[in-house]
Amino acid sequence: MNYFSSDFKLGILGGGQLGKMLLAETRKFDIQTYVLDPSSEAPSQFGAAKFFRGNLMDFETVYQFGKMVDLLTIEIENVNLDALDALEEEGLKVYPSPKTLRLIQNKGRQKDFYVENSIPTSAHQRFVDINDLKKALENDELEFPFVWKCAQFGYDGNGVKIVRSTMDLIDLPEVECIAEQMVPFKNELAVIVSRSVSGEIKTYPVVEMEFHPEANQVEYVICPARIDEKVAEKAQKVALKVSEAFNHIGLLAVEMFQTEDDEILVNEVAPRPHNSGHYSIEASYTSQFEQHIRAILNLPLGNTDSKVAGIMVNLVGEEGFSGPVVYENIEKIMAIDGVTPHIYGKRETRPFRKMGHVTIVNENMAAARKIAEEVKNSIRVISVQ
Amino acid sequence: MNYFSSDFKLGILGGGQLGKMLLAETRKFDIQTYVLDPSSEAPSQFGAAKFFRGNLMDFETVYQFGKMVDLLTIEIENVNLDALDALEEEGLKVYPSPKTLRLIQNKGRQKDFYVENSIPTSAHQRFVDINDLKKALENDELEFPFVWKCAQFGYDGNGVKIVRSTMDLIDLPEVECIAEQMVPFKNELAVIVSRSVSGEIKTYPVVEMEFHPEANQVEYVICPARIDEKVAEKAQKVALKVSEAFNHIGLLAVEMFQTEDDEILVNEVAPRPHNSGHYSIEASYTSQFEQHIRAILNLPLGNTDSKVAGIMVNLVGEEGFSGPVVYENIEKIMAIDGVTPHIYGKRETRPFRKMGHVTIVNENMAAARKIAEEVKNSIRVISVQ
Repeated sequence: MNYFSSDFKLGILGGGQLGKMLLAETRKFDIQTYVLDPSSEAPSQFGAAKFFRGNLMDFETVYQFGKMVDLLTIEIENVNLDALDALEEEGLKVYPSPKTLRLIQNKGRQKDFYVENSIPTSAHQRFVDINDLKKALENDELEFPFVWKCAQFGYDGNGVKIVRSTMDLIDLPEVECIAEQMVPFKNELAVIVSRSVSGEIKTYPVVEMEFHPEANQVEYVICPARIDEKVAEKAQKVALKVSEAFNHIGLLAVEMFQTEDDEILVNEVAPRPHNSGHYSIEASYTSQFEQHIRAILNLPLGNTDSKVAGIMVNLVGEEGFSGPVVYENIEKIMAIDGVTPHIYGKRETRPFRKMGHVTIVNENMAAARKIAEEVKNSIRVISVQ
Repeated sequence: MNYFSSDFKLGILGGGQLGKMLLAETRKFDIQTYVLDPSSEAPSQFGAAKFFRGNLMDFETVYQFGKMVDLLTIEIENVNLDALDALEEEGLKVYPSPKTLRLIQNKGRQKDFYVENSIPTSAHQRFVDINDLKKALENDELEFPFVWKCAQFGYDGNGVKIVRSTMDLIDLPEVECIAEQMVPFKNELAVIVSRSVSGEIKTYPVVEMEFHPEANQVEYVICPARIDEKVAEKAQKVALKVSEAFNHIGLLAVEMFQTEDDEILVNEVAPRPHNSGHYSIEASYTSQFEQHIRAILNLPLGNTDSKVAGIMVNLVGEEGFSGPVVYENIEKIMAIDGVTPHIYGKRETRPFRKMGHVTIVNENMAAARKIAEEVKNSIRVISVQ
């Protein structure tokens, strides 16, 4: 198959920042792309050969879009899977497959899958709605504290809540949900596994999410993770086991907990480029976005090693600001060696909205970590009032 | 000035591969761009907010385009300078300035400029046309051998010829030209100097063009150049002197000869991203394209150091092939660690047409050089017959 400067068309469902960074790689290889996204202000509206607006959950929209392309991929899991089934049945290549997506879209189903495949994960219970969960509490089939998660459409900490008493249940929505056992952990880790159509597999190094000591929010994604070599090996092994179980094509980002006694428990996965791999654009020989393209087109996978240490800081909208975005002090951080801002292209900021990220690369991890803190303390995503 | 996700518009004259790679950086920063190029198949047609077709040498076209943007830059020197003069007079920021471009557009004028500014360069004579040159030969004011160059619109070895006898004059066009003294040289070197609006200056490492032993064609651009530290320092110094003389804003690629006795002679310059800096996308902390954007927007300049050794191989159309392009063995080279092809997006190949380039990065220069040879010997730019 000739993908380069040819008539071949790659379809991408979703036009957010992940799609935008994917597009950059398709431009580098001159692969023709069609993008579908509901928003007229989607970050991926530039760079595609054609950009279409439409609802990603609508059967007809997704089906029609799929009929125009030669291969279909996603940058968001929440797409109409029945349309993907129909397209696949008619012979279209869909990577990741709707089967993989179906296992992942529902967090209850995803957790069951780990249990079925002997993949270490925290204990969980599934509930059809919040009343079902309350009944379990009344019957002593569920105990406080636990982690409540809505089964579908959660993202970035939305749809997740630590429940310590019945008071924490008051504001929870009526939707299908799961309750997970609370596991005290030392570190949150992630490994991105790439797997091509022909089955070639390469894993990226283990990264570490460093949390704010008080706010309990991820502040830095750090590659490589500053953990024991043996723990890193174990995390890689678990990630590979998860990858094998899903038998996915493309990337699979595996988020894990390192428990107090150095066990590895799988938290959740994403079958696509992932926030925990953004560092790879600057730090790795092959960025996660290029790797996803290579994997789904059955091209040889690239080298996943790092050239230098990499740290990623998310740029999220500051609390108290809504409106046209201003990146305060961006020039200050750009004056520091090895600092690269990525601006996703959303014109309006809102509290906690993901607006971009900053990568810090350095030969020396300690130096990178120090600069990352300086970056974090300098730049603010605000709006002109 | 707020450039990021704002109403600010950057205009780019020219939509070739250099423009395409510039656009990738404007997307990363979400800077709005307008592009002007005569071709409907320009590599930069994707990724700009707006793409306009028009003649870059036409006053009215360039002037009207300039009136729509907040700052104007170029990716090709051959643009209508009178239009740029008019725009600049009316207050538009034009970087590089028409003054700089005027000194460079005409190679005779460029050589005079070096002499006026005591910049080391080979001896030259200017001629209004080929008859003028022939007269000089008859009057013994010019001697064989010499290097003939057409004064304007030459590119990539077009418009350059070594003249050893009157027979070599037969096919030369009637245009304005120069004759340069032939200088035996050991190496062809280049240094890219970046200079921002506020006068901040950073130079990239010296790169080396390695020639094919027989064909006298550049095969590899190698960073850092495998030359004596002292020669590298001298080349950097000369490049900085040239940069100061031009007082340019943006990038200035300075091509130089290292003579048999280790003198540095300036060959020619380009006031924009340059083929000799393509390695920087993968090898440097800041790519030349990002640096050009930083310089013309008066943002702090980025770190010009390399993370790893970098070698660039041009992908040019194979002799004997014209038509829809195929990159033979591209999958083979993509299987090698640290190899990244860049496909410019020209659908038709022609003999010697620049279709793309391949970057090879490695911690070890000798390993990179070996892989570069493997790449060079594997990939072929052909067409389906």
